Amino acid sequence: PVSQKNETTTMIPLDFSKSADGLLPAIVQDHASGEVLMLAYINEESWKKTLETGKAHYWSRSRKALWLKGESSGHVQMIREILVDCDADTVVFKVEQLGGAACHKGYRSCFFRRVSDGKLVVDQTPVFDPKTVYGS
Amino acid sequence: PVSQKNETTTMIPLDFSKSADGLLPAIVQDHASGEVLMLAYINEESWKKTLETGKAHYWSRSRKALWLKGESSGHVQMIREILVDCDADTVVFKVEQLGGAACHKGYRSCFFRRVSDGKLVVDQTPVFDPKTVYGS
Repeated sequence: PVSQKNETTTMIPLDFSKSADGLLPAIVQDHASGEVLMLAYINEESWKKTLETGKAHYWSRSRKALWLKGESSGHVQMIREILVDCDADTVVFKVEQLGGAACHKGYRSCFFRRVSDGKLVVDQTPVFDPKTVYGS
Repeated sequence: PVSQKNETTTMIPLDFSKSADGLLPAIVQDHASGEVLMLAYINEESWKKTLETGKAHYWSRSRKALWLKGESSGHVQMIREILVDCDADTVVFKVEQLGGAACHKGYRSCFFRRVSDGKLVVDQTPVFDPKTVYGS
């Protein structure tokens, strides 16, 4: 839906110079419910790969490597729509989350905790057991 | 709704060490529609101010100063709910956007552009004229 088939993808320029490390935040939203699932970071390569393949690619800050979301869990994020902000330094990926969960802790969303009376309370129940998906 | 009245606000710890500049991204979402309105950055001071006042405070990277959103436009963001992610390095502010528009360009959302066939297309019409709100 994002890239044109059988044609070279036109690159949408983003302002990667806005951050010291050349990374920009990508907000990941469930395309149907609008729930925010996670936030990850993209560099130019992951941006290009996402546009070309229609699958969300990020830059893993911990592994310092290109990261196809779902490469180990199978929980790939299929891109349904991409939004770009006024300053071209943040994007929204509206996705179909395969496997039903975005968080490595097994929750549907990484934002499974809510501030309530000055404390954090857990708002969701896990969709999968991380030990089963990633190994113990 | 976030801080307890007449009591010292319990500070919810976030992992500000995760970024080189000590800033963490705050995703701002319309509390009713779920639309992502903008992304801004918080430091410890703006996080504390947001929890204490129930109004979204950020760190302005351009002005290098604490920023009460709406301080010049009047378009304050009233906090309805705050979510914290699994790594405690990103938050979601669910807000009531006063004035109906979050973007300094007059659009409801900063994400008023969508990727379509390798190009960016504008998806919204402005809610206000920036010249009227901020001066020309």
